[in-house]
Amino acid sequence: MKLSIIGAGYVGLPLAIAFSKFFNVYCFDVNLKRIKELQSGNDLNNQHNKNEIKKKNLIFSGDSVILENSDIFIITVPTPINKNNQPDLSMLKSASSLVAKYIKKNSLVIYESTTYPGCTNDYCVPIIEKHSNLKCGKDFDVAYSPERVNPGDKVNTLKNITKIVSANNCKTLMRVKKLYNLICKSIYQTTSIKVAESAKIIENTQRDLNIALVNEFSLIFNKLKISTNEVLKAAATKWNFHYYRPGLVGGHCISVDPYYLSFEAKRNNYLPKIILSGRKFNENMPKYIFKQIKLLLKKNKIKKKIDLCILGFSFKENIPDIRNTKILNLIKLLENEGFKYKIFDSFVSKKEVQKIYNIKIYDFNEIEKFKFDAIVLAVSHKNFKKKISFYNKFYKNLSKKIFFDLKNVYSAEDLTKNNFKYFQL
Amino acid sequence: MKLSIIGAGYVGLPLAIAFSKFFNVYCFDVNLKRIKELQSGNDLNNQHNKNEIKKKNLIFSGDSVILENSDIFIITVPTPINKNNQPDLSMLKSASSLVAKYIKKNSLVIYESTTYPGCTNDYCVPIIEKHSNLKCGKDFDVAYSPERVNPGDKVNTLKNITKIVSANNCKTLMRVKKLYNLICKSIYQTTSIKVAESAKIIENTQRDLNIALVNEFSLIFNKLKISTNEVLKAAATKWNFHYYRPGLVGGHCISVDPYYLSFEAKRNNYLPKIILSGRKFNENMPKYIFKQIKLLLKKNKIKKKIDLCILGFSFKENIPDIRNTKILNLIKLLENEGFKYKIFDSFVSKKEVQKIYNIKIYDFNEIEKFKFDAIVLAVSHKNFKKKISFYNKFYKNLSKKIFFDLKNVYSAEDLTKNNFKYFQL
Repeated sequence: MKLSIIGAGYVGLPLAIAFSKFFNVYCFDVNLKRIKELQSGNDLNNQHNKNEIKKKNLIFSGDSVILENSDIFIITVPTPINKNNQPDLSMLKSASSLVAKYIKKNSLVIYESTTYPGCTNDYCVPIIEKHSNLKCGKDFDVAYSPERVNPGDKVNTLKNITKIVSANNCKTLMRVKKLYNLICKSIYQTTSIKVAESAKIIENTQRDLNIALVNEFSLIFNKLKISTNEVLKAAATKWNFHYYRPGLVGGHCISVDPYYLSFEAKRNNYLPKIILSGRKFNENMPKYIFKQIKLLLKKNKIKKKIDLCILGFSFKENIPDIRNTKILNLIKLLENEGFKYKIFDSFVSKKEVQKIYNIKIYDFNEIEKFKFDAIVLAVSHKNFKKKISFYNKFYKNLSKKIFFDLKNVYSAEDLTKNNFKYFQL
Repeated sequence: MKLSIIGAGYVGLPLAIAFSKFFNVYCFDVNLKRIKELQSGNDLNNQHNKNEIKKKNLIFSGDSVILENSDIFIITVPTPINKNNQPDLSMLKSASSLVAKYIKKNSLVIYESTTYPGCTNDYCVPIIEKHSNLKCGKDFDVAYSPERVNPGDKVNTLKNITKIVSANNCKTLMRVKKLYNLICKSIYQTTSIKVAESAKIIENTQRDLNIALVNEFSLIFNKLKISTNEVLKAAATKWNFHYYRPGLVGGHCISVDPYYLSFEAKRNNYLPKIILSGRKFNENMPKYIFKQIKLLLKKNKIKKKIDLCILGFSFKENIPDIRNTKILNLIKLLENEGFKYKIFDSFVSKKEVQKIYNIKIYDFNEIEKFKFDAIVLAVSHKNFKKKISFYNKFYKNLSKKIFFDLKNVYSAEDLTKNNFKYFQL
């Protein structure tokens, strides 16, 4: 049996590796840099090592001809949003067209990309049918199994999770169930593709809203001069409290998925209130943090154009993923008002950040070469979690020491003891 | 040592019983009916049995003179909201005045009532000081230990939970810690009373918002003709999904606490966006359900004034608690449009409901005596969770069978198989 995967990113690669234990797997991506990287056994996303990637029956290619004669196609392309926060389905469209070109009788097409309820049947299948002249349910079958990749998480990996599967009919459902049973700990089948699409889209929406809520708590408690950090820790001693931390919400999922659900709700004449209030709130956090930075500096009579040491650039701790990082929004605001800064991050690819954003990233090891006026701890990478005394070094020549601890890494007590003026979320 | 408790309700009674193992406990309440009930060993809240209540060193009284010479006062009075959704602190005020009358040097006053951050020190302590002519911190001390009572929950009882404690100074903190250590599994101390007040108020606010979110999901999926029930079950197979169910949010805590936090935020010039969007959404659910009831009846060409069988009246399953039950709002809407109905609930006190709301409640055992046109399953009391075939009985003479399963007790499959036209949240 021949299995092909379209998209060799965070979702496609783990699938390719897992299935290559059982089948010949052909992995296609339009990103030739990524294909080259994988061909030489390197995964710059840090998910897999060379031993896992370099396998005889696992082929990576940027030439779609490798898809020929596949029995199963798995589509794992990104589903981002455009500038108007609308679903950008262009990659789903081109992947579907591509599959149509190579699909044959009795092929199975499985979508793993996150999308709005109804998208697979109403948007994707017609594309395949149109370009292949084959009929879904008669000539080929379709299934949907939402990815649950959590970048940086070494526990909840493909192997260890419950995988949702759904399909266009019972026979296909059994087929796809059997398939994923080979590589996942447990399988959960839904009665329809729509239900599986919906289940996926609400998971991150819930997470987004819960972070928005603690962000609102943080705003309120800041006004009341109460440590949000301490409040959350205390509340977390209740058996059913969910311990979310305030902060910037970036990445490819949490900050995107709510817009997909909203899109489909609006098309059905419902304007979401809760979901969008959370999304709007989180989108506004860089601005709020920027205001707090200016406020604390003003309070301490520090002139505007100081040198900031910004710690962290990726959207999440301990990973190189820079998709939708909200540090970028914060930096733009700072730049516009003439702040100087250097960004340190040993996880992200300096080349990539330079190329995409035209921003220079320094390695954390270089930090002692420079002098700064204030520190912004923006991402809690493990190498930033030093004893607070470590950060004293940069302040030798500074009368007022300012620390913006956006990840609440330090206790208020620690910061005060070390004579820092500080802001925490 | 003499310990007194002001308020013999859901919070006061468990405390009184627990502390009576160690001290002479005097429990005061202005509700003489409740006092009589407890004196005869009965707890209509179903939290405790006669053996626990009837103890030599546990005295219940409606005469405040029993508070005389107390070393420790614990205030557990309700903190509801008024008609404008503002904190109603009247009971906190009268309890504080009462304590002021009996307080002596070195007394400790502990508040357990849920309230907004800052209330204990800014509102309560001044009342005691004014009426007692004693000074807090010098003549007497104050502590705050938020109650975590979960009506109907037999697992997370006072004995089993982590209890937050806070106080006006270190010495008092040690004193109150030692005290609660006698009766609770573990103790968590906060650095200030404000932090403890905040921790309590956010717990239920988080719960309220999460229910509002699934309520919004339910509205959206209803429009998309997708079963919310199935979607939530599927999503719950993810390791970090929080499985909340859509529904009416009543009771004394979840539907009230967000207003307390909003009150203090507004006083500090911040208008909550997330919190209030959730609250507003949940407040609107009776109206939404009412509309769906009318819609389904209209679809099935059933004339308006049909006879509804409403199952459940309490705000939560398997308890008699009728505080802020939203079934009431639903009933008012139905009444206004001329619907007839009978309500069945074997948990609530029929007398109390008649007295407070002027509504007749029937026992579930009587249900087979009557004929109805449609069923509204509003509270998932255990005795309502029959096999779906049970409900067929009431429809013998009815051509179209309608089931409003507001608690998603049944699967869509079950309802369909039994020929019910149904609406589920």
